[in-house]
Amino acid sequence: MISETAPVSLADLQVGVEHRLEGVRGEIRRVIEADFPLIAQVNSHLTQMQGKMFRPTLLLLAEAATIPEPGPRAVSLAAVVELIHLATLVHDDAVDHSVLRRGMPTINALFSHQVAVIMGDYLYSRAVIELVRLADLEPLRVLSRVTNEMTVGEMRQLLAHDPLAFSEADYDLLIRAKTASLISGACEVGALGGTRVARDAMRRFGEGLGMAFQIIDDLLDFTGDEADTGKPVGLDLREHKVTLPLIYSLPHMAPGERAQVESLMAAPEPSDAQIGAVVRAVAERGGLLYARERAQQHCAYAEAALEAIPVSPARETLRASLTYVLERRR
Amino acid sequence: MISETAPVSLADLQVGVEHRLEGVRGEIRRVIEADFPLIAQVNSHLTQMQGKMFRPTLLLLAEAATIPEPGPRAVSLAAVVELIHLATLVHDDAVDHSVLRRGMPTINALFSHQVAVIMGDYLYSRAVIELVRLADLEPLRVLSRVTNEMTVGEMRQLLAHDPLAFSEADYDLLIRAKTASLISGACEVGALGGTRVARDAMRRFGEGLGMAFQIIDDLLDFTGDEADTGKPVGLDLREHKVTLPLIYSLPHMAPGERAQVESLMAAPEPSDAQIGAVVRAVAERGGLLYARERAQQHCAYAEAALEAIPVSPARETLRASLTYVLERRR
Repeated sequence: MISETAPVSLADLQVGVEHRLEGVRGEIRRVIEADFPLIAQVNSHLTQMQGKMFRPTLLLLAEAATIPEPGPRAVSLAAVVELIHLATLVHDDAVDHSVLRRGMPTINALFSHQVAVIMGDYLYSRAVIELVRLADLEPLRVLSRVTNEMTVGEMRQLLAHDPLAFSEADYDLLIRAKTASLISGACEVGALGGTRVARDAMRRFGEGLGMAFQIIDDLLDFTGDEADTGKPVGLDLREHKVTLPLIYSLPHMAPGERAQVESLMAAPEPSDAQIGAVVRAVAERGGLLYARERAQQHCAYAEAALEAIPVSPARETLRASLTYVLERRR
Repeated sequence: MISETAPVSLADLQVGVEHRLEGVRGEIRRVIEADFPLIAQVNSHLTQMQGKMFRPTLLLLAEAATIPEPGPRAVSLAAVVELIHLATLVHDDAVDHSVLRRGMPTINALFSHQVAVIMGDYLYSRAVIELVRLADLEPLRVLSRVTNEMTVGEMRQLLAHDPLAFSEADYDLLIRAKTASLISGACEVGALGGTRVARDAMRRFGEGLGMAFQIIDDLLDFTGDEADTGKPVGLDLREHKVTLPLIYSLPHMAPGERAQVESLMAAPEPSDAQIGAVVRAVAERGGLLYARERAQQHCAYAEAALEAIPVSPARETLRASLTYVLERRR
């Protein structure tokens, strides 16, 4: 049973793997090391804006939960997964012309759009070189498929700007490709040394967790406190991104509310009042409750997948990561 | 000895491998096949703008020159090399905001900048998936290194806009990374089934050929007829790209000529008269002759590398490809 009350922080999840995460940070620095000054500058900025290491944490936990003795390869693989994640963020920010990421200037803002496109390619090709160095085709197989899925997700994202045409099924396909694929891949790659059953279980666990993670992310855009999330409420709406709370509530809206959604989507730069009105309408029409319910369902699917692997402290930490994802404020 | 008189066309080089190139085209279609409509549309445009298949041709010739019996893998590998090339072109055009490529609209112009960034990632990740399918780490090792080198080349290109600061050594590093690396990689991957000696010979051959290829490309920007090249003369100058002819001739210019170069580089949109004046000054100060001489030196290096592999019709076709590169008009 997923506890809905005990708050779980990311630091709680990382207690057992913190020393290995230090190794992951070292591996990232080693893999992206550059003799070219401009690349070195970008790298230094990237390692400063490095995130919460959620995917490496999951990979290391999945390893601990599925094989008896942790090996050094998992640390390198975790670094590769984080690098692929970073490459995707750099290209996403370039595609979206985003100016800030986690409160820091994006590569496209700080250097240029051109540098961002090239650096994304640089990071990804370095990740592939590192996978080749490990001389095992299985992680390459999983992560190249995942990377391709993420590009398909990005392409779907481009079409996610018409709330009347973008359905919940489209949204599910989008977040599965964009977010769940890499989280699932991280869990699966962590379990590659385990049995086939354990590997499949970790893949499914990561898929459910990843779906929930993105739904909550999209939900926080409606409910989050800027002090927590570092982003103003309604940023997705401002950028005309249609997510689950809006998709669900739109058919339940009164004609006047629907007209407000349409005028927001038609406005090149929606006003705070327009955004506030739509956020309220989505809340009143049950969009937030529905999205949370869907996230819980995905977490239940993920939790069921855990039953296929033996009881262990790492398995319980993976279970706790579901609570973290559901309860997180940022 | 490289013949400087007999003209060699690309079609001449392709006579012995034309049926296999058909197979490469089929493989490319198979590898990038998409179930997602927008990706399918972009793919269809990409296959129409598909180029002269120079790199696949070299790969197949390198295979024929180094192993007794050609195998089916080379056709797949040639498709992968062309896909990596296409991915690079798509990102280059996005980075440069180019509107035309080989007389056809670029992906960024026809679709959007966003689509171009995502599609480059899509093509590259599909190429990696295909390499993993072939279940051999060696081509992956060569081509992931090459892809990373190309991103470093792109980064160097961003700095190639200051003729006073950009030296011939910088230019050599740039074109080695940007162009010679993939051509060399194509030749090396074609020879992976051969001996270590043959493989090294093909790598060096491709490096010399690739260096010459890019120098001639840059030279054609000064001398080419628009009807042949499909590009107006001086396009690089218009975009403030500094290449070998200008690098060589600048220190030999009179102060007045040098001032013309400086004002062209300072002009956001240089006039035809400004470009014409610099093109003439470069020609008069020996920049074109020098660049051709350098290309010939690289071809001589490539030709010497051929001595390490046994005499065969394919080896002679590789030798003829040097003449093609030196004499081509487009």
